[in-house]
Amino acid sequence: MEPVLFYGVPHGCSFGSIVALEWLGQPYRLSRIDMLAKSKSNIYARFNSKQQTPTLLLENGKPLSESFAILQNIAARDLTRKLGFAQGTEGHDRLNQMLAYLHTSFHSAFAPAWTAFKLMEGDPAIQLLRDLAREKAAEGYSFLQSHLSGREWLVGENKTIADAYLIGIARWGEDLQLFDLKREYPELYGYLHKLEADKAVIFAHAIEDGKPAVSSGQFLGHIGLDDIAPRLAA
Amino acid sequence: MEPVLFYGVPHGCSFGSIVALEWLGQPYRLSRIDMLAKSKSNIYARFNSKQQTPTLLLENGKPLSESFAILQNIAARDLTRKLGFAQGTEGHDRLNQMLAYLHTSFHSAFAPAWTAFKLMEGDPAIQLLRDLAREKAAEGYSFLQSHLSGREWLVGENKTIADAYLIGIARWGEDLQLFDLKREYPELYGYLHKLEADKAVIFAHAIEDGKPAVSSGQFLGHIGLDDIAPRLAA
Ligand SMILES: N[C@@H](CCC(=O)N[C@@H](CS)C(=O)NCC(=O)O)C(=O)O
Ligand SMILES: N[C@@H](CCC(=O)N[C@@H](CS)C(=O)NCC(=O)O)C(=O)O
Repeated sequence: MEPVLFYGVPHGCSFGSIVALEWLGQPYRLSRIDMLAKSKSNIYARFNSKQQTPTLLLENGKPLSESFAILQNIAARDLTRKLGFAQGTEGHDRLNQMLAYLHTSFHSAFAPAWTAFKLMEGDPAIQLLRDLAREKAAEGYSFLQSHLSGREWLVGENKTIADAYLIGIARWGEDLQLFDLKREYPELYGYLHKLEADKAVIFAHAIEDGKPAVSSGQFLGHIGLDDIAPRLAA
Repeated sequence: MEPVLFYGVPHGCSFGSIVALEWLGQPYRLSRIDMLAKSKSNIYARFNSKQQTPTLLLENGKPLSESFAILQNIAARDLTRKLGFAQGTEGHDRLNQMLAYLHTSFHSAFAPAWTAFKLMEGDPAIQLLRDLAREKAAEGYSFLQSHLSGREWLVGENKTIADAYLIGIARWGEDLQLFDLKREYPELYGYLHKLEADKAVIFAHAIEDGKPAVSSGQFLGHIGLDDIAPRLAA
């Protein structure tokens, strides 16, 4: 059977993997995981012991976790789509570098604000944590904006899995009400705005929002956790 | 000229890249960066705009940053050394997954404690931040210990760049006086202890400590920032 991506809502970093699967143009399915659910699903723990999203269930019935590994797996399925680069090339190094930056420093910049989000209103740690997040994420937005100056995409001449990933997490600054990106980072905002018009990005938003979604790739529909459990390799 | 690795002291995550270069067995040089220096070097900023280590200066005079990208670059230089895997194989996916886990969740677990380390004694945030780090890092140590059960190395049948990276950062729990690994994670400790006896690991410690270091690879010596600046590509 075709691969199945478990994606997390709301506004998870899985977003980039959905976009990448659309861009790849090969058959796939999705399975939805509510990350805020009070009691996490015991079935999903069999696919991802850390109960994190995304996870990609491969054709051999084995789950692949970690967004970085999933995105590179998707890109490697057809290098002619130019979502990634061949191993040993400069493009491959630069893509690894950008993906690593986004998955480490930039992703983790927001972590203190997510921690604050879960604290009780009035907790004195909230401001400390939000300030820390704003400081770190501001470094990230500035770096990305200056990196993109004179470039159309993050790495090389085409949109890659790095752009797919960034469009899924750059929004966190506004979700957390830490930034007004249009005002503070206008050029970066322009790049994000351009990506928002991409069919795959529009599709991924519709999927997240539970609205009718038009695939420009080969999306074969959702599948529930119960239906998928038998597919797990022993 | 051969590649030059900028590594950070004390106890930086560059450690893994030094180990990997030794395992690769091809000529390389090192350049030392003091991460605690009060005023950071303006020269180093030309190699790494974020003033972070590691950075690998490539043969073409271009710097490659992000430990993940550097380790995969080293592995890809000679796949017959089995420090990594060919793109498109299951090994490559599993290595990306493990490297991503180590560079994201596990590395960032310690971040709050590093933040606390820089605060003034008596600051009430210190305990909060250290507790947060201990909680997150404990998840990491447990996960790694159970992952290693019945396995000799993190990924596949041989030691890889993932083992090189882990040996450089697993020590942070004790550096920060958050854990007693031998008592709390005896099997993980056994694996780390085995790696500590590896020639490349012994070498990397000696390099960090500024002691006489015996290369079992092709280390050609240190080079200073001033001597290296002219090598930067325009
Ligand atoms: N290192 C993982 C982190 C994934 C991650 O942070 N997932 C978040 C959503 S963006 C999640 O599952 N959060 C819920 C949780 O950790 O319980 C990756 O890059 O895939
Ligand atoms: N995402 C980077 C992070 C590198 C990093 O955290 N480097 C630390 C040493 S382990 C550093 O340079 N710290 C000093 C600083 O950030 O100013 C990578 O994986 O290479």
